[in-house]
Amino acid sequence: MSKNFVLGLDFGGTKIAAGVAEFGTGRLAAYTHKSTPKPGDPGHVLPFVEQMTNELISQAGGEICAIGISFGGPIDKEAKKILFCPHLPGWESFALKEWMERAFSVPAVIENDANAAAIGENHFGAGRGCRSLLYITVSTGIGSGLILEGKLYKGHDGLAGEIGHMVLKPEGPRCSCGQRGCLEALASGLAIARRAREILSELRQEGELLRSLCGGDLENLSAKTVSEAAKRGDALSRKILREAAQNLGWAISNAVNLLNPERVVLGGSVMKLSLIHISEPTRLGMNSYAVFCLKK
Amino acid sequence: MSKNFVLGLDFGGTKIAAGVAEFGTGRLAAYTHKSTPKPGDPGHVLPFVEQMTNELISQAGGEICAIGISFGGPIDKEAKKILFCPHLPGWESFALKEWMERAFSVPAVIENDANAAAIGENHFGAGRGCRSLLYITVSTGIGSGLILEGKLYKGHDGLAGEIGHMVLKPEGPRCSCGQRGCLEALASGLAIARRAREILSELRQEGELLRSLCGGDLENLSAKTVSEAAKRGDALSRKILREAAQNLGWAISNAVNLLNPERVVLGGSVMKLSLIHISEPTRLGMNSYAVFCLKK
Repeated sequence: MSKNFVLGLDFGGTKIAAGVAEFGTGRLAAYTHKSTPKPGDPGHVLPFVEQMTNELISQAGGEICAIGISFGGPIDKEAKKILFCPHLPGWESFALKEWMERAFSVPAVIENDANAAAIGENHFGAGRGCRSLLYITVSTGIGSGLILEGKLYKGHDGLAGEIGHMVLKPEGPRCSCGQRGCLEALASGLAIARRAREILSELRQEGELLRSLCGGDLENLSAKTVSEAAKRGDALSRKILREAAQNLGWAISNAVNLLNPERVVLGGSVMKLSLIHISEPTRLGMNSYAVFCLKK
Repeated sequence: MSKNFVLGLDFGGTKIAAGVAEFGTGRLAAYTHKSTPKPGDPGHVLPFVEQMTNELISQAGGEICAIGISFGGPIDKEAKKILFCPHLPGWESFALKEWMERAFSVPAVIENDANAAAIGENHFGAGRGCRSLLYITVSTGIGSGLILEGKLYKGHDGLAGEIGHMVLKPEGPRCSCGQRGCLEALASGLAIARRAREILSELRQEGELLRSLCGGDLENLSAKTVSEAAKRGDALSRKILREAAQNLGWAISNAVNLLNPERVVLGGSVMKLSLIHISEPTRLGMNSYAVFCLKK
């Protein structure tokens, strides 16, 4: 059996995804994703990932020669350790790359998830061939990866791309980073669900569709629930999504004025939802742009 | 007489500056600046600049072998023509580089003023040796220049760095670009003066110091007037400057979260004023930074 596969792993706050692809051609031989175990610290997650991965490699019918790891939090500049991770507590300073190399006896690379996605879209996806690209992932949180002059731009400390912590409304809702009114606190999946919960807690007589979709328990309400209700015409849900999309457009416009990229690509789980106004941000800046939506 | 000098020219909305420096050493042999003639179109400005420059070269006692032009508006990507210029009307599409080359029979280069300043600070100034640098000029307008990975980053269309058009307050004052609540409409020299005029027009009994400093005519009121009053302890002026500085800090924090530069350098005429809170922006993002103030 030849070592002709590469393993790709994505560690997120909501799910963990794994794919095995042919080295060279990139053909996907096997893919799976599972909900992130709770609690989501390395002690619980890593045995789970090891088993999930070994099954996947068997299913692909080969051996792996390398691992690419995408992680939902900032990585240190030497790309070895996780710096911090608001959505996956307990991973701070963990040497995930080394752990993987020891567990599978092959070399690994690790990158922040938005950076990894920017590289992927630049090589194979919606940003193919662009010299400059702003890739934004709207998911549990919001992050971005920058391709500038044809290369990933990581910043002085490896922390570039934190568009999710662009403050839009200083008096707005509290963000996981401690500030108020960050884009992530206004337009991420968690923010959309929180906003819906807030409104439903205040309203007693309205929001029947949203209430019924989450079985009467607001704790079950997610961005997907809001999207589902919006698709069925629910005015409240449409309003919540429209506001999230307007905030996203506002942040994109600010970033575009600063970076003047060739293209903006949007990805992440929230982009799969019916964000009906996402392709028409209401305010584009001096640099007027079409915003390209990637619906994965 | 040997051709051992270079001429540097800066075209701004308020003043035009010229310097003659030794090629190689950079030693400044002569310098002058004058108010931009009104009206500020090429037909009026260029004969004025030609005379001012010829006098300067005579004063330096040499001949020039090259010209570097800094212009207060975006330049096309091939660095030949002025794209547009909110503060110097009538220069759109003007081929200033070619005009200078013909007038002085030496090669010229042209660059947007904030980009030129970023290169200058990176080579000789407060950003010396930095691999990445965000230079922000706060003057009549607000612009920025980005040094990334050791080189000027101009963006896909040569329009990067428009931090002045980062929208902070969508319901805020109208900006020269057509949007509302851009940084430039909240913290530039013109914005500071406008804000003071607005408040004084509303207040009848207060603002005595500001009124007396501008001789009772609000049309004479400038950011410098506000700064002068603030230095003398005027509470209203201090409040206006503090608000402008807070907005500047907010925009810097957003830009830093996106770019994670090694250093931020602030320049421009407004930075010479007593912006008492400028070195303590109230909200820094995930990427926490000291903000370096360049008081020229």
